[in-house]
Amino acid sequence: MACLSVSQSEYIAERDARLAWISGFTGSAGTGVVTTKKAALWTDSRYWIQAERQMDCNWELQKIVWTDSIGEWLLQEIPAGENIGLDPFLFSIDLWNSYAHVLQGSSRTLVPIEDNLVDLVWGSQRPPLPTSEIYLLPETFTGSTWQEKVSGIRSQMEQHSRSPTAVLLSALEETAWLFNLRGDDISYNPVFYSYALLTTSDISLFVDRNRLSAEALQSLSALCPGPLCVQVEEYDQVRASVQAYAQGDVRVWIGTEYTTYGLYGVIPQDKLVESSYSPVMTTKAVKNTKEQALLKAAHVRDAVAMIQYLLWLEKNVPKGSVDEFSGARYVDKLRRDGTTDITRTVHWGEPTPFQKEAYTRVLMGNIDLARLVFPSETSGRMVEAFARQALWKVGLNYGHGTGHGIGNFLSVHEWPVGFQTKNVPLVKGMFTSIEPGYYQEGEFGIRIEDVALVVEAQTKHGAGEKAYLTFEVVSLVPYDRNLIDISFLSEDQIQYLNTYYETIRQRVGPELQRRQLEEEYEWLRRNTQPFSRGTLVATSLGTLAITSLVSTLLPDRQA
Amino acid sequence: MACLSVSQSEYIAERDARLAWISGFTGSAGTGVVTTKKAALWTDSRYWIQAERQMDCNWELQKIVWTDSIGEWLLQEIPAGENIGLDPFLFSIDLWNSYAHVLQGSSRTLVPIEDNLVDLVWGSQRPPLPTSEIYLLPETFTGSTWQEKVSGIRSQMEQHSRSPTAVLLSALEETAWLFNLRGDDISYNPVFYSYALLTTSDISLFVDRNRLSAEALQSLSALCPGPLCVQVEEYDQVRASVQAYAQGDVRVWIGTEYTTYGLYGVIPQDKLVESSYSPVMTTKAVKNTKEQALLKAAHVRDAVAMIQYLLWLEKNVPKGSVDEFSGARYVDKLRRDGTTDITRTVHWGEPTPFQKEAYTRVLMGNIDLARLVFPSETSGRMVEAFARQALWKVGLNYGHGTGHGIGNFLSVHEWPVGFQTKNVPLVKGMFTSIEPGYYQEGEFGIRIEDVALVVEAQTKHGAGEKAYLTFEVVSLVPYDRNLIDISFLSEDQIQYLNTYYETIRQRVGPELQRRQLEEEYEWLRRNTQPFSRGTLVATSLGTLAITSLVSTLLPDRQA
Repeated sequence: MACLSVSQSEYIAERDARLAWISGFTGSAGTGVVTTKKAALWTDSRYWIQAERQMDCNWELQKIVWTDSIGEWLLQEIPAGENIGLDPFLFSIDLWNSYAHVLQGSSRTLVPIEDNLVDLVWGSQRPPLPTSEIYLLPETFTGSTWQEKVSGIRSQMEQHSRSPTAVLLSALEETAWLFNLRGDDISYNPVFYSYALLTTSDISLFVDRNRLSAEALQSLSALCPGPLCVQVEEYDQVRASVQAYAQGDVRVWIGTEYTTYGLYGVIPQDKLVESSYSPVMTTKAVKNTKEQALLKAAHVRDAVAMIQYLLWLEKNVPKGSVDEFSGARYVDKLRRDGTTDITRTVHWGEPTPFQKEAYTRVLMGNIDLARLVFPSETSGRMVEAFARQALWKVGLNYGHGTGHGIGNFLSVHEWPVGFQTKNVPLVKGMFTSIEPGYYQEGEFGIRIEDVALVVEAQTKHGAGEKAYLTFEVVSLVPYDRNLIDISFLSEDQIQYLNTYYETIRQRVGPELQRRQLEEEYEWLRRNTQPFSRGTLVATSLGTLAITSLVSTLLPDRQA
Repeated sequence: MACLSVSQSEYIAERDARLAWISGFTGSAGTGVVTTKKAALWTDSRYWIQAERQMDCNWELQKIVWTDSIGEWLLQEIPAGENIGLDPFLFSIDLWNSYAHVLQGSSRTLVPIEDNLVDLVWGSQRPPLPTSEIYLLPETFTGSTWQEKVSGIRSQMEQHSRSPTAVLLSALEETAWLFNLRGDDISYNPVFYSYALLTTSDISLFVDRNRLSAEALQSLSALCPGPLCVQVEEYDQVRASVQAYAQGDVRVWIGTEYTTYGLYGVIPQDKLVESSYSPVMTTKAVKNTKEQALLKAAHVRDAVAMIQYLLWLEKNVPKGSVDEFSGARYVDKLRRDGTTDITRTVHWGEPTPFQKEAYTRVLMGNIDLARLVFPSETSGRMVEAFARQALWKVGLNYGHGTGHGIGNFLSVHEWPVGFQTKNVPLVKGMFTSIEPGYYQEGEFGIRIEDVALVVEAQTKHGAGEKAYLTFEVVSLVPYDRNLIDISFLSEDQIQYLNTYYETIRQRVGPELQRRQLEEEYEWLRRNTQPFSRGTLVATSLGTLAITSLVSTLLPDRQA
């Protein structure tokens, strides 16, 4: 018998950090297996060094992370005829099925174990459920009332050929988005423990009622009784309620990418309407006009903070008085609003020719993807390679994804937008990051990350019913001129870059002036000078990559 | 009750042309459904006009071709509680499952009907099974004996974590390739009706023994008895034999993309080892050195024939003495060896600026994909958009795939290489076509198709364990200068084109001279002049697209 443990989410609450508690490893991605004789942990290359340091000798680190390779290890370690236990509430349907597929016909069986074995050992030491307030986002932040969102989802249910009678919301960002509610159960992600069942006539929200603010409760019950009345039920009643509902003549629409096997199991097979993502997930992915305006405005404020930070670093790094920790504290002080995600890599010394080439090629990838024109509903996977081609050309590459969706005061890494196989096709109104990189092991790392909005493209011959799209980069921070070797760039790339810099000046310049940040304004003008072939700039000292990942928003400070 | 009929293959034998027989529609792709009240046919836009003409008023044409839309039609037309019959030997596992998925929970059931209802009505009018000879390809055409291939597949079975005890070969090109045998059961595809079961100790080939040439029979039984002895069994015994084999302690490796649901059904679930393609399919996709040399040599001969044809057209089209039919007959006379696939679009008049732009952008797509450098094992899907970007930029696109694998004296459209989701990752030694296009409805069409070999790329920084790949175009026919607007091309694209033309001169020139085709040699020199910005050539009259699709090879004429 083995027991498989997994972190399904990148960000989790303390009480769900089972892998960290049992193994010591605190990275954001990993799978652990404990057999009667061994304990093994799988994580990707980012975390190998950290995992080796954090785990004791009871644990062995495995360096290939595919489900298949975990499956092969299980086949080696577990004798035929034995069982492999999994907590069905920690594995999505798709992940469960992929393990089942690997073990198919091997005489080893996956067994759901509902009383999580790690929790039993953890016992009273396990952090309790959060009790902090769940609050309502005003319409000025959302652009749609939750009632409008519910009606929109219900019309998608009607239009579906299978006519589902309910949608089950089991991802935390689904309930947060649908009801315009936020909490702080998970660091950097303003969500709260909850489920919801939205039927054609009723709405059940499974959450600790005591945590709802008075305003939130009032909003949820304003239209009671009726089809727009939210019944608040106990969080741990969800399974029983769904099971009871599924007794009737119903069809429940679920997203198989993230609904847990445990909840899926209580709905009879013939009453399921399965798609990779629920309509709540796919609707949330497309931002309305208000949300677009808010996200763009947040990026202007963020640019101000980033420029203040870059200028501060430029002055202080050469003195030797800044390290990554004090730098991170300083930038956190500068920016505490909006959900943004930006990465700039800077160098205050004399970069080597190879560092400049690598940086410039990462930038070329960023530019080539950002300026691409493509038909509406193209999958991100089909265009991702434009961010890699400049690196590929000289035999370089990076081992991570090229981008992810961004929430509106929600997850900074928001499903299901992005450039990987399981992401949904790109349509107008989505936000995604564009973040190619390059990493020279033991020497240096480069990432250039911007957030971009998917917008309609004006094309020469594309008049007609079929829309063409492109990206509008909403991050507004210039790149390090010291690392750009302009001779690698094509005329088109230079022109794109100069247009982008002009946009930065127009949007961020006035805000810097309004705040009387004169030195920052000068820095902005200096760093957004147009490029032409032959431009080269150099200054002084060291390499540092600035990554920022801010998703907290103080509603009272939002413009 | 409805009955679903489908053409799984692009090329089929007469006796399998059930859809054509029952509906009148003879296109290469379509799905038909007959209910007790209606008959409907789904086909893609290429065939809408043809289908409307060929079908009588009993049939209705449906213009959306996804499984989902057929499913929706079924949900509308078939009352709940009724059944939908399918011939399980005409539906692959994956296709069957996708219909099952669409109908899941709708109270309509897919029912396998093994006695095909169309065949029952067709009766004695149905064309009989072919009886023509199945012959052995000598090693000079294959580069590997069938015994070497069998041993290679068996070592893949050993290395597989599930240790399959057998591989089931159910695609016709699998048996043809593995045993180095060929037939002529299907036009343009030198395959023959057969199945095979390759186990760790035995080999069964299910085929009409009387059709095997003496040489073929001798080769198959040369090492009998033993693990490299092929037992020839009756073709229609395959199901019973597989079923009997599956009673034992065995695991059967199958390709779910094409194994039929009927064969799949006789193997217990826990004895299946499923992958999209069998190891025979994936091994066949990578050509050995001998096969590469043969395919390259065939393209030199093909270039000679194409150049003769283009010159003949250039002379005769202006006289008005050629139409598409007489042209096709002439080119067939010129070339009857090798498996090649090439498309050139030509214009002997004054093309409009839009025609030139569209042609040039199709060419740019062809060039951009052909010269791309990418890591080994990149999926074709990830790089396909490079063939589209020049068109996308101005709001144009094409509605077909960008390429497909090519067999060595086998299918001209060979699975599983290509640029779509279900194709396998690209590795060194694969051949694929690269064939972007553009079609202006009711006016003109453009396609530029070349065959390319996946080769290692020499990169500036890519030394190390990870190989980078690119394409070597093996088609050697220049593009129509009259349709190229050089001002759209980048310097890199012009340089690529000039290098390609230099290769054509070097490889095809000597062959033209050897055959004393002086006029053709001059044509070649004229049409492969290097380009530089400002080059423009124009001549006279009309538009014609030349597509060729030749897969017959006369062994005695092969060099």
